[in-house]
Amino acid sequence: MELSVIRERLDQLRRMMAAHGWDAVILTGTDPHRSEYSAPRYHAVEWASGYTGEGDLVVTADHAGLWTDSRYFIQANAQLEGTGVQLHKTRVPDEVPVPQWLARHFAGGSETVVAVDGRCISATEVTTLRTAFGAEDALTVVSIPDLLQPLWTDRPAVPQTPVITLGAELAGWSRTQKLSWLRRWLSEGGFDGILLSALDEIAWLLNVRGEDIAYNPLVISYLLVTPTDCLWFVRKGPLPPEDHETEDSFYELTADGVSIQDYDEIGLVLSGMLDGEFIHRLFVDASTLNYDLYQLLKESAPRCEIEAGRTPVGLRKAVKNEIEIAQMREAHLEDGLAMVQFLFWLEQSLAAGESIDEYEAACYLHDCRSRIPGFRGESFETISAYGPSAALPHYVTPETGSRVLFPQGLYLCDSGGQYIFGTTDITRTVPLGPCTQLEKEDYTLVLKGHIDLAKAVFPRGTAGCQLDALARAPLWASLRNFGHGTGHGVGFFLGVHEGPQDIRQNFNRQPLLAGMITSDEPGIYREGRHGVRHENLLLTVDAGTNEFGAWSRFEPLTLCPFDTSALLVGLLDESEIAWLNAYHKRVYEKLSPRLSGPAARWLRDKTAPVTR
Amino acid sequence: MELSVIRERLDQLRRMMAAHGWDAVILTGTDPHRSEYSAPRYHAVEWASGYTGEGDLVVTADHAGLWTDSRYFIQANAQLEGTGVQLHKTRVPDEVPVPQWLARHFAGGSETVVAVDGRCISATEVTTLRTAFGAEDALTVVSIPDLLQPLWTDRPAVPQTPVITLGAELAGWSRTQKLSWLRRWLSEGGFDGILLSALDEIAWLLNVRGEDIAYNPLVISYLLVTPTDCLWFVRKGPLPPEDHETEDSFYELTADGVSIQDYDEIGLVLSGMLDGEFIHRLFVDASTLNYDLYQLLKESAPRCEIEAGRTPVGLRKAVKNEIEIAQMREAHLEDGLAMVQFLFWLEQSLAAGESIDEYEAACYLHDCRSRIPGFRGESFETISAYGPSAALPHYVTPETGSRVLFPQGLYLCDSGGQYIFGTTDITRTVPLGPCTQLEKEDYTLVLKGHIDLAKAVFPRGTAGCQLDALARAPLWASLRNFGHGTGHGVGFFLGVHEGPQDIRQNFNRQPLLAGMITSDEPGIYREGRHGVRHENLLLTVDAGTNEFGAWSRFEPLTLCPFDTSALLVGLLDESEIAWLNAYHKRVYEKLSPRLSGPAARWLRDKTAPVTR
Repeated sequence: MELSVIRERLDQLRRMMAAHGWDAVILTGTDPHRSEYSAPRYHAVEWASGYTGEGDLVVTADHAGLWTDSRYFIQANAQLEGTGVQLHKTRVPDEVPVPQWLARHFAGGSETVVAVDGRCISATEVTTLRTAFGAEDALTVVSIPDLLQPLWTDRPAVPQTPVITLGAELAGWSRTQKLSWLRRWLSEGGFDGILLSALDEIAWLLNVRGEDIAYNPLVISYLLVTPTDCLWFVRKGPLPPEDHETEDSFYELTADGVSIQDYDEIGLVLSGMLDGEFIHRLFVDASTLNYDLYQLLKESAPRCEIEAGRTPVGLRKAVKNEIEIAQMREAHLEDGLAMVQFLFWLEQSLAAGESIDEYEAACYLHDCRSRIPGFRGESFETISAYGPSAALPHYVTPETGSRVLFPQGLYLCDSGGQYIFGTTDITRTVPLGPCTQLEKEDYTLVLKGHIDLAKAVFPRGTAGCQLDALARAPLWASLRNFGHGTGHGVGFFLGVHEGPQDIRQNFNRQPLLAGMITSDEPGIYREGRHGVRHENLLLTVDAGTNEFGAWSRFEPLTLCPFDTSALLVGLLDESEIAWLNAYHKRVYEKLSPRLSGPAARWLRDKTAPVTR
Repeated sequence: MELSVIRERLDQLRRMMAAHGWDAVILTGTDPHRSEYSAPRYHAVEWASGYTGEGDLVVTADHAGLWTDSRYFIQANAQLEGTGVQLHKTRVPDEVPVPQWLARHFAGGSETVVAVDGRCISATEVTTLRTAFGAEDALTVVSIPDLLQPLWTDRPAVPQTPVITLGAELAGWSRTQKLSWLRRWLSEGGFDGILLSALDEIAWLLNVRGEDIAYNPLVISYLLVTPTDCLWFVRKGPLPPEDHETEDSFYELTADGVSIQDYDEIGLVLSGMLDGEFIHRLFVDASTLNYDLYQLLKESAPRCEIEAGRTPVGLRKAVKNEIEIAQMREAHLEDGLAMVQFLFWLEQSLAAGESIDEYEAACYLHDCRSRIPGFRGESFETISAYGPSAALPHYVTPETGSRVLFPQGLYLCDSGGQYIFGTTDITRTVPLGPCTQLEKEDYTLVLKGHIDLAKAVFPRGTAGCQLDALARAPLWASLRNFGHGTGHGVGFFLGVHEGPQDIRQNFNRQPLLAGMITSDEPGIYREGRHGVRHENLLLTVDAGTNEFGAWSRFEPLTLCPFDTSALLVGLLDESEIAWLNAYHKRVYEKLSPRLSGPAARWLRDKTAPVTR
């Protein structure tokens, strides 16, 4: 974007602020559901600053600042240069978060007025802001729906993509089963309503999927479930006449007792139901409820008791049922074939002296996946990173001018697919030719860490943070480490990142239950040199009971060889070698029946057992 | 104790309850400082029930119940048989804790009156009790100082043992340095007083030690420190004329500005200082404050602000200074020599066909330690356990009729010494002759777990619970586990169990800081068969800084060989074997200069390197 455009937009915003008497405006990139990715309509930070990463923008009469964490420092510095917007670093020592910064900036003055779009900021954030200002009369927060609307004239609408439904043959549980289960939960808890606002929870509960958000097959909506009613706030306008998919879906949903409502009516209908005393005790999702809805509920407080917490849907969704598991296995078989096709092509092409850059490699991989029936797009933006690019764990591969691959050193590819029958996420680091000793060591130690976690057996009820050290200890032993989590939950044809479980240093008490799917992706990153990451998805399964208690273990879902050409086998112990050989044997047995000719031979070679 | 005596005591207690109109009495075994071990004066539960373990006794007109956890079920069942006292299990599913039991027992009646000795129950416990009863007027708690006094005519006095002082050459920091440090802390926090009630914190701060409590070299006392005064509430009566040690210590303390006060005057003096407005903001130790003192402070609340929390002394004490560390190394050298002498004797005696039982073995070990200059007793009761005895992690070796050792299977000895220059805690499991395959496997896997934790390198700031899995993973891999923590903090000539750090599954955020000493003691226990535990004390030390951050590692303080005769070396990997051989080399180098003849040859054999 041109610098002059940004400066003009900031000027316009400041004129609007002056006209309304606002001392500051907080813009976020968040949608009303706190989705991990948001639709372009909610890219307010980008509109006002040109910056496309995560972060919050704060504008006052004399300052404009962007708050973001280390993943985005380089990007923010580049994109904000010349805009006058200053970078404020978060998650660093001595960080001054937005609330504290604002409180200090306006300290000593009269009442400060801060404007926000109450749909795009969480209730918690506003509370934190109030706390920072201390005295109640020191701060007024005004919530303006679609705050930028008067200036952002070409602002995209709320997306309205075709809605599809999943039958029980795909989802395992039908939506009527799920609704009955949720209503039992309401009844047991003494609630007469639950408001779901997390889009993946709604999609799971109703067995619906859409394309409203990049990489996440979700439908922007709210869902209100009571003992007798199920109201889905979803329509954003009349259905396009050609959208028969959605028409059929709505028909099916209505038949199952789901009432289709307009997305924008949520406030009106909800306050009517609270006012009319249809709902006396309502459960809401504390982690995704936006400030506007929170305010609406608070105003109903005398008439209705509101309980905010973690909904039961998140945990239930994370524990996959047998049908979901069977299909996830199938999705990983198909995805593994695509990966093999890609890795085989990469090796052949480089050997033939062809010139391929990071972006072209990502495109080829996309083509491989897109030929799979049921493919619905990628599960996140492919990280296709060669050499020093891979030293950035969240590297964004540029469309033009990306690094060209040479037959030496390490190439890292972190990618995944959304299929109607599952979601995948895989990272392979590929030696493209000769590697340095350090590259080989890093490659091997990260694989050692990956294997040590993957082969773990552990008491039922163990949380991910209690296992995290297993993936890190082999790296720690040589004074190496990585700054991201080891594993995140993965949905079933839903978000590639989901809770409540994870495998990290942070203390998260959620046990890894049988049926949960979590990634295992340790890494080592060396700035300006290279990066290594090895990632499979692991399914937690029961491992029996004995005199010492009940046990769990992992089953790797991902089916794709780890390249052994850069492996320093001597750094692996026997049990690690045994795991690797057994894994490769399984990969070969599962994939080879679907391959022939050179690709089959390639896979046989790549999965050949290693010995010390 | 005779059953008739117990029944008579319970009858007397019930007559006293009836006379006073008390519906229930709660007796605890706790002293006014919540010490891990209490002096006989506080063994109220034992007096009234004959039961000598940990637990609370609740007596009503129609019921007497003892509440304790699984460590004591067997002991409680045996000791309570025929007394009419019923065992209530705690830390089990469906447990009904004392407060809930009382609330249910008296539900529906008029106001319930519960009598306690307010010095021997914590403020938290009384709060929990009030919460269980719900309505404020449903419960009256009456606190009677020395509640059992009228019945327990031969009740021991508060112990008054000789008080000794440690110079800075032993303690590292002089008491004036420590007092200055604590007063800086007061000043920085805006406090004008801190009341210490944990006996090990007081002993550390004043550099004093005593023998008021078994196994813990502590002095029963309170300490009040203000910016200008330091009041030690410790005198329980006139000093015996021959106690020159205490006289000298008191003189030295007085010279350093410590005012010696009567132990029983704490309430009077404290309320005077709060009343007289000498103290406006007082810090107290939330974890050891008893109910009576809490009540006294609460009554002063309008005049004085009370902040309850973790005192700074606990953490400061846990991080040993250079002089304490140097002496702990020395203590472990001496202790290691005693252990070698003991293990050598044990092997020789059994080989010579001598009959030794568990208790005799413990006595011999005591003799070995008692010859060390500066020995002040054991740091806890020695667990000397052969065969099935060792399957109980907290086995109490009986004085008479203990199991006789035979030249086969596993003997476990967990013991430690208090020396004026340090505290030790060591467990060795010794194969006395041929072992079964299962014994060998358990022996080896526990050692593997011990080594994997001991050899860990980890980012500075890592907490024990983030490392715990390292000691367990080798056991988990064969579906084995143990039900206790892996490691506890150890004091410097103080309690053998101290916080704030530990290494357990429980989430404790306290990092393992350089200078902390923690045990490493995984185990496997098989009821009716055998038990294995291997324990060294580990000192956390800095391991440098590099591009990945700052690092820590462990240095084993304990110096004593692990018997390799039962080792299945094939189960250890190369790095584990390397650790074991390096450890044994160090043990030999440190101890052998102090040994000669057969013992030196024995140690050389026992520390010989192993190979696969």
